[in-house]
Amino acid sequence: MDIVDRMLAGDRRALSRLVTLVEQESDEVAEVMQQVQPHTGKAYCIGVTGPPGSGKSTLVDKLALLLRSRDRSVGIIALDPTSPFSGGAILGDRIRMDRHALDRGVFIRSMATRGSLGGLARAVRDTVRLFDASGKDFCIIETVGVGQIELDIVDTADTVAVVSMPETGDSIQVMKAGILEIADILVVNKADLPGAERLTNDLEGMARDNQREPWWSVPVVPTVAKLNEGLEGLMEKVEQHRKALEETGQLSVRRQEQRAKELMEIVERLIRDRLMKGKNADGRLGAIIQKVAEAELNPHSAAMEILNDKDLVHGWLLGTNENP
Amino acid sequence: MDIVDRMLAGDRRALSRLVTLVEQESDEVAEVMQQVQPHTGKAYCIGVTGPPGSGKSTLVDKLALLLRSRDRSVGIIALDPTSPFSGGAILGDRIRMDRHALDRGVFIRSMATRGSLGGLARAVRDTVRLFDASGKDFCIIETVGVGQIELDIVDTADTVAVVSMPETGDSIQVMKAGILEIADILVVNKADLPGAERLTNDLEGMARDNQREPWWSVPVVPTVAKLNEGLEGLMEKVEQHRKALEETGQLSVRRQEQRAKELMEIVERLIRDRLMKGKNADGRLGAIIQKVAEAELNPHSAAMEILNDKDLVHGWLLGTNENP
Repeated sequence: MDIVDRMLAGDRRALSRLVTLVEQESDEVAEVMQQVQPHTGKAYCIGVTGPPGSGKSTLVDKLALLLRSRDRSVGIIALDPTSPFSGGAILGDRIRMDRHALDRGVFIRSMATRGSLGGLARAVRDTVRLFDASGKDFCIIETVGVGQIELDIVDTADTVAVVSMPETGDSIQVMKAGILEIADILVVNKADLPGAERLTNDLEGMARDNQREPWWSVPVVPTVAKLNEGLEGLMEKVEQHRKALEETGQLSVRRQEQRAKELMEIVERLIRDRLMKGKNADGRLGAIIQKVAEAELNPHSAAMEILNDKDLVHGWLLGTNENP
Repeated sequence: MDIVDRMLAGDRRALSRLVTLVEQESDEVAEVMQQVQPHTGKAYCIGVTGPPGSGKSTLVDKLALLLRSRDRSVGIIALDPTSPFSGGAILGDRIRMDRHALDRGVFIRSMATRGSLGGLARAVRDTVRLFDASGKDFCIIETVGVGQIELDIVDTADTVAVVSMPETGDSIQVMKAGILEIADILVVNKADLPGAERLTNDLEGMARDNQREPWWSVPVVPTVAKLNEGLEGLMEKVEQHRKALEETGQLSVRRQEQRAKELMEIVERLIRDRLMKGKNADGRLGAIIQKVAEAELNPHSAAMEILNDKDLVHGWLLGTNENP
């Protein structure tokens, strides 16, 4: 497509429109991605996550500025919380846009769930590919939200930095649970606040006790993003982690696994779409759905009845006339 | 099963164990639910949601006490935020358990996502059915989290109360977006705080401007849950909404739609399980997956290639040998 060529040639507006296509789960996404595919695989992806108030956005901004000062181009995806109660990053995004507006080496895009959470995950991954193909050296995925889905998304990055800050009290204990499992680097931001040293010590101890890979010890990096302190140290750790991933062959293994997983998810979504289209089916399938609706049959038993019947599945999923 | 009979006879421990089965997505769930099904359909389900700090838990507790004082039995499902950063309601739950411990008419259970968000939604619905079959007159689903998934879950209730409180600033504007679409009743809790009147007026205006159904005007109910004020008024509105749902036939229509939707979701999950099992497939399917992993083929195109091939889908989903 013409627009893909323009994006590949560096047209920011084309890139922006393609990201929108991806966000809207347009039917053209498959075609776009097939055309984009040969131009991907070069960008390195950093995920940044952490609880609200830990200063992630500032950290990501300063990291982008540091990379720009080294003449690296950067694409940022800022994930909005999926909460309908919170205002989201829309205003913040505009302010940040302005800050980078004159710099053509930074492209920032914020995303929120419109429909499904799975849709957001797919959109993020395809946007990373678009950034990659458009020549960005680095992608940064920043999750403002703190739900499982945001963690899953940030976990698709090559290096994941988990940000915390002093005096968040009990949160350290809880971070043990899911967070240490995805952190490649622990960042103590606002390290000029009281309690930073204790938090750093605690996190270092936790990282030591929970080492996941023989070839990587999760480091704890202090930063004061607001004052631009500690960013070089953070970036150094990112590069060390990248080197370790490359030398152990893990970078390629992880990316392969990601892509296979992604295929499953897309197949799943297409199946769901077809299932929903078949909802008003006639015949045997319609009768089963009706029985469930009227609470004569429980949905679990009905689902198994359907799936164990070749003809029913066939008729439903493929839209053939084999649904007697 | 014996345990279902014991639950139906009022055994709390049996109920508790069955909820655990449901939470763990045990293989026995289908059998349990088929046995439970004939005993369901009597309980009325109230959903309570709202931003953090709005006092939902206290409101739900007082609502349960009010219902108990009228000799109605109550089952409460408190949803934990899906955030791995927050401690969740586990401690709070214990305290609440104690408060109701001597009262056999209240059963309270808190749930959090362990695996998938979809799993949580299914567990909540099946738990409502278990509560229903065990003879509870009312189920209350309380969502502590504020993500889309929690809204989807609370939306399965017959009557949804959305709680807000004065002086949450901008949050009113944002509530317009998703929340008004699910609210049957708007609660202004902490109505003794300054700003309550303004919030009430604002919400009343919003409700007027966004009326969804000709037969129901969303009321705004002030409460001070901590002081046990306004609960009767809230319950009166719940009963009015219930009456309206029944008189218009909407209660039955909605529940039928819920069940059909649930069937789709379960079919989807079973398909996903089978897809994941087929991930290491040989033959043509395996070759496609390999091509995606190695980034030769993009996952979107690959997914369509698979789904448009009857034999491939068949072999994959049904585990037959038709995968050449």
